[in-house]
Amino acid sequence: MDVTEFFLKLLIILLSAKFFAEMFACLRLPSVLGEVAAGIILGPSLLGFIKVDATLYLLAEIGILLLLFEVGLETDVGQVVKVGVQSFLVAATGVLVPAVAGFCISNYIFHLSQIISLFIGGTLVATSIGITVRVLVDINKHQTKTAKIVLGAAVLDDIVGVVILAILYDFVVKGSVSLIDTAKILGFITAFLLIAPVITKLLVPFISKASLHSKTQGIIPTIMVSLILAMAFISHKVGAPGILGSFAAGIALARRFFLPLGSTIDHYSPGLAEKIEENMKPIINLFVPVFFVVVGASINLKVIDFKSVTFWQMAGLLTFVAIIAKMMSGIWVKGGLKTKLSTGIAMVPRGEVGLIFAEVGKKAGIFDDLIYAVIVFIVALTTLFTPIVLRFVMRGEEDLP
Amino acid sequence: MDVTEFFLKLLIILLSAKFFAEMFACLRLPSVLGEVAAGIILGPSLLGFIKVDATLYLLAEIGILLLLFEVGLETDVGQVVKVGVQSFLVAATGVLVPAVAGFCISNYIFHLSQIISLFIGGTLVATSIGITVRVLVDINKHQTKTAKIVLGAAVLDDIVGVVILAILYDFVVKGSVSLIDTAKILGFITAFLLIAPVITKLLVPFISKASLHSKTQGIIPTIMVSLILAMAFISHKVGAPGILGSFAAGIALARRFFLPLGSTIDHYSPGLAEKIEENMKPIINLFVPVFFVVVGASINLKVIDFKSVTFWQMAGLLTFVAIIAKMMSGIWVKGGLKTKLSTGIAMVPRGEVGLIFAEVGKKAGIFDDLIYAVIVFIVALTTLFTPIVLRFVMRGEEDLP
Repeated sequence: MDVTEFFLKLLIILLSAKFFAEMFACLRLPSVLGEVAAGIILGPSLLGFIKVDATLYLLAEIGILLLLFEVGLETDVGQVVKVGVQSFLVAATGVLVPAVAGFCISNYIFHLSQIISLFIGGTLVATSIGITVRVLVDINKHQTKTAKIVLGAAVLDDIVGVVILAILYDFVVKGSVSLIDTAKILGFITAFLLIAPVITKLLVPFISKASLHSKTQGIIPTIMVSLILAMAFISHKVGAPGILGSFAAGIALARRFFLPLGSTIDHYSPGLAEKIEENMKPIINLFVPVFFVVVGASINLKVIDFKSVTFWQMAGLLTFVAIIAKMMSGIWVKGGLKTKLSTGIAMVPRGEVGLIFAEVGKKAGIFDDLIYAVIVFIVALTTLFTPIVLRFVMRGEEDLP
Repeated sequence: MDVTEFFLKLLIILLSAKFFAEMFACLRLPSVLGEVAAGIILGPSLLGFIKVDATLYLLAEIGILLLLFEVGLETDVGQVVKVGVQSFLVAATGVLVPAVAGFCISNYIFHLSQIISLFIGGTLVATSIGITVRVLVDINKHQTKTAKIVLGAAVLDDIVGVVILAILYDFVVKGSVSLIDTAKILGFITAFLLIAPVITKLLVPFISKASLHSKTQGIIPTIMVSLILAMAFISHKVGAPGILGSFAAGIALARRFFLPLGSTIDHYSPGLAEKIEENMKPIINLFVPVFFVVVGASINLKVIDFKSVTFWQMAGLLTFVAIIAKMMSGIWVKGGLKTKLSTGIAMVPRGEVGLIFAEVGKKAGIFDDLIYAVIVFIVALTTLFTPIVLRFVMRGEEDLP
């Protein structure tokens, strides 16, 4: 890799993301859509200027970790727990209905083999938490009840998506599935989710002391980014997506997260939360758009043969089902039709995990070019669907007190 | 590259850099030395935990660009011009004396071939501007007259170092040197140095307007980092080191840099400089230590055969000469012996460019293992010399008004 050429690539990514984000914001569209559009334009779909290499992918991953950390920081864990049952029902429906519908259509209508159909069903499972969260922030609805339910549900079905991928992958490689291994992974993830915020919170007095007594510059961004990376690393090691770790770290550092011994700890660190926010904002704002550009650049619309009738049949039906099946998850939410609808729509985007399924399926020889193209089409359409539709449906919804 | 493994690597780099920086600061040693020490410990010299791969190198390069940008931001171009003649004489002496001395000793005392001797002479030319600047900041002497002279001189001899490397490399590859090419490069660099700050300054009204009217978050860090990357890219394309570009960008955005039309432009942007500083500080503080850890991790002390008598003869004599010859550059500075001495000492560190010479020399088959080890030893010793010695010599020197 030529470092100077990478500088050029990076600056074009940063500038075009900003340019399109601003343009979309002016058109009253969510700016995240502009960033994804920048990625589609710069990527293999159009200009072919960006190839997502290891380094760019790394920067993008840091971006999504930082975004989930920020979301965690702004999350009131009490509110999430309060809507926990609804989140769980939304997540469960949002996993089961698309998976079953995807499998059945693939297997019974298009007569694909069982394993291919299982993979297609799996692709439809995981909501792209990144897109969903950014859209809610962009349209300034991230403190509504819908947002809290969706956040919890999206985190849950991201976990389920990764676990399903692990199981299916094992099945393809070994020909069998170990229920014990699966239970182990789920146990690890649950343990991590419970322990990670507690440990982070216990670090607060140390962070606070370090920031007061430090003789060098930049102790807070260094500790924060290290913490985020550490949590992502551990989260990945226990079998969960890395973003779960950074989200947990954010939640633990939120002003509203109290351990039983929380009041004692908070005593140590007046003003620390503000300092953390102030120091992390510029870093977060710099890295996050790289992630969405990479999402756009990971979609290669050129693989799609738009003249193929089979493609349109499969892509059309499966995309329709991907949207409708996920939207059904909203029925469990208490409230009027509008609330149910907006929850369902917010759950629709499939991004990262869907594309990972597609890549794994392709590399394992399960997906041929046609099905790969269909999945890319589904990911692209569901990703673009929510940002465009959600702002109209959510008009008038109010923040939680 | 496994992204999760890289997370672990990066967080260990960040944390150990901070830990050693704090420790050194507590011992009243420059914190930069702690960061380099962290690199030496984590790198191939000791633990072998860090291999400087392309991605890590890129993050380090961004770090040094940001450091030079920050130095530029704090530079009063008027003061640099005022000491310009002295800087020029310091740079010229600091280039000529070490180069000639290095060549003569290698050629006449150790009977090495002319081309090897030329390369060794070249290695001794370029002061490590990163180390020098950080040491001056660490001991809080970066606003003294000495600091201004050294800054100008270090920038100049970094340029000369890169040009000499280009010439020598051409000579090795083609067997001849084109004076016209060399003159062209120097012309480009001069033009760039004159034009870059002016163009940057002309962008200020645009940046100011963008930051006022932006509908998305993080417009300032995005524009700033893009500007720095763009300037580094162009600087590299005209044949100069990338840091020259980011330094020029910083100078242009400094509050004290006035174009003829400066007063009109400054009218557009009250408070912009503060906003830039506030937004860039956390990013700079996060990235800069990565650079110094990579400097430490680039030095492999294991290549040195400490039992070899020839090694000690060459390394001892050449290191001695590298230090004394560079220190002579201080004689041109107006003032007492102490000022001359501190200027000379500040010019001693050879870091990045020295190691690049060593790498190029080794890859081109000019340096054998022995001479490569000697050069690594020289770089290590001169890099550690200045941070330790300078604070004692500069005690009592005062800031420029």
